[in-house]
Amino acid sequence: MPLQVKNHQLIVMKKHNFSAGPCILPQEVMQKAAEAVVELNDIGLSLIEISHRSKEFVEIMETARSLALELLGLEGKGYHALFLQGGASMQFLMAAYNLLETKAGYINTGTWSLKAIKEARLLGEIHEVASSQDQNFNYIPKGYEVPSGLDYLHLTSNNTIFGTQIKEFPKTEVPLVCDMSSDIFSRTMDFSQFDLIYAGAQKNMGPAGTTLVVVKEDILGKVSRQIPSMLDYSVHAGKDSMFNTPPVFPVYVSMLTLQWLKDLGGISAIEEINEKKANLIYSEIELNPVFSGFAAKADRSTMNATFNITDETLKETFDTMCLEAGINGINGHRSVGGYRASMYNAMSLESVGVLVDIMSELEKKG
Amino acid sequence: MPLQVKNHQLIVMKKHNFSAGPCILPQEVMQKAAEAVVELNDIGLSLIEISHRSKEFVEIMETARSLALELLGLEGKGYHALFLQGGASMQFLMAAYNLLETKAGYINTGTWSLKAIKEARLLGEIHEVASSQDQNFNYIPKGYEVPSGLDYLHLTSNNTIFGTQIKEFPKTEVPLVCDMSSDIFSRTMDFSQFDLIYAGAQKNMGPAGTTLVVVKEDILGKVSRQIPSMLDYSVHAGKDSMFNTPPVFPVYVSMLTLQWLKDLGGISAIEEINEKKANLIYSEIELNPVFSGFAAKADRSTMNATFNITDETLKETFDTMCLEAGINGINGHRSVGGYRASMYNAMSLESVGVLVDIMSELEKKG
Repeated sequence: MPLQVKNHQLIVMKKHNFSAGPCILPQEVMQKAAEAVVELNDIGLSLIEISHRSKEFVEIMETARSLALELLGLEGKGYHALFLQGGASMQFLMAAYNLLETKAGYINTGTWSLKAIKEARLLGEIHEVASSQDQNFNYIPKGYEVPSGLDYLHLTSNNTIFGTQIKEFPKTEVPLVCDMSSDIFSRTMDFSQFDLIYAGAQKNMGPAGTTLVVVKEDILGKVSRQIPSMLDYSVHAGKDSMFNTPPVFPVYVSMLTLQWLKDLGGISAIEEINEKKANLIYSEIELNPVFSGFAAKADRSTMNATFNITDETLKETFDTMCLEAGINGINGHRSVGGYRASMYNAMSLESVGVLVDIMSELEKKG
Repeated sequence: MPLQVKNHQLIVMKKHNFSAGPCILPQEVMQKAAEAVVELNDIGLSLIEISHRSKEFVEIMETARSLALELLGLEGKGYHALFLQGGASMQFLMAAYNLLETKAGYINTGTWSLKAIKEARLLGEIHEVASSQDQNFNYIPKGYEVPSGLDYLHLTSNNTIFGTQIKEFPKTEVPLVCDMSSDIFSRTMDFSQFDLIYAGAQKNMGPAGTTLVVVKEDILGKVSRQIPSMLDYSVHAGKDSMFNTPPVFPVYVSMLTLQWLKDLGGISAIEEINEKKANLIYSEIELNPVFSGFAAKADRSTMNATFNITDETLKETFDTMCLEAGINGINGHRSVGGYRASMYNAMSLESVGVLVDIMSELEKKG
């Protein structure tokens, strides 16, 4: 018998969740997650009351770790996949703690890059190799030269707040570190060009509370400082991501989501859907005079579409129409204003269609 | 309609979960948690897909924070309650990062104290004020003198692995820091004697993935080092525990558990039940020649009872009897061997009774 929702019959409207994160996850994943909180795999115990050393949870962790590497095409290539705590914010610090000996380069593409730079500065010299701060981060810097002698170059692949996304990564001998919090598992690329990838789970992977770290073994052990255990990738890798009690529920839901993605056909399959969703909304933004896009065309994110309303007198009408259609979470970030439609992996083309229909209807009213 | 468990009718045996942590939580809490994963408060969205900045989650976080202070009797006394990530293991580092300027004292009562000492040593001089390592930590050191001039004295209130518990805390001018991971909210005491309390959620408070930190405002801002943002209590306190995306599900379940405890009558009510459970099992251990307790009588933990079987030939029979009765998670930690029955707040007296009955039955067989 499937899990039943209290008062399910009272929900008359399907919600279209455009929240920037934590965000929509596949319905079947949330259903299975709820079932596991009641009872895991008919073992007579809830997922959240079993020991993390039980064979059930060890298998969950191992499955999640190997699915992550498999989906990224990094199996057998010398990488560790770890499910840690603290979000990308903790990785801003850990990346520097583990890899920064003297000097590192950062590409500054917005709020999250700036936060990463701030934490790294406590541990060494930081070189801002390129920046788009001059235009409120509405584009991705290109054509810059990466200086030699850097311990690493840090990039933010997708900028949730500004709706920009790096389409091409620099070719360089310098090891690449990438914060992929908001677009990991959303598009195909050669992930082996990176030595360190990290991503908070709460966009394309799972609920808030765990962070995927994919780190190349070769890059570790090169700094001279003593690294506290909990900040040391080698310590976590040496314990198969079980140095201390891991965040059981977030890891389990991440495993379910990665399994869902694999069953769907992997990253290439979801990439196709993501491109359709992005094309649908960006075409509307381009053609509809009531709206204007925020990000430079070439750098528009497939995950987060940022746009403004050109006629402010229509704002209230638009907001009401969205509310009535069950659209949730499209207010823009305060640094940009306007609107932001986040269309992560679990968002359906249909939901984007509902939003686009409203945008189009508004034009007729305007 | 209440949440339904898949194949519920197939579960013929109630499990008695003595796991040391993650561990048993109240049934009604797990039920409500599962329902919220399907849909939170009839809002048409799952708990795990809403923004952490939504009014629903902000209210959850605020309720959890205020319930924690209320239950500990610390409301309005200058303390912050924070729900962070990384477990007690991260607190071993953060406590020292925030409070250790030159020299701190540690009471060494076992594995967790040793780990705390190890991390703190990276940041200053550590004075082992007392230790029970000479007898494999089967007792709590007493009668030691606390040297003056320490930045703080660190204690572990309950030692999960060894089954010992500090019954009386030192009276001293030195600020007290206490790792209460495995017995917070289980017994009454004057919590205002501590300047910093921390506890991983996964024993008496919630699922793995969040850590309660209760810190006195006065103790902060006194060290000269620069503290990375994510390790800085002041940063988290300044943002009401929302500096970055918090672990939404673990915080929600912690809130439910704290509410459950409050409804039950608070810490004094649960303390009474905890004492009954402990008395029941320790009486059996004392009277039954087949078993011998590990911890010194005066220092026995009300949370974790550690004991060995005196006649090894009965071990297999005992294990089979436990398995058949649905008893889960009573194997002792490898540093102690034998058995460990963890009896956290959500464990019923009835479940302890089932175990004690088997112990008593075994004596008749022996």
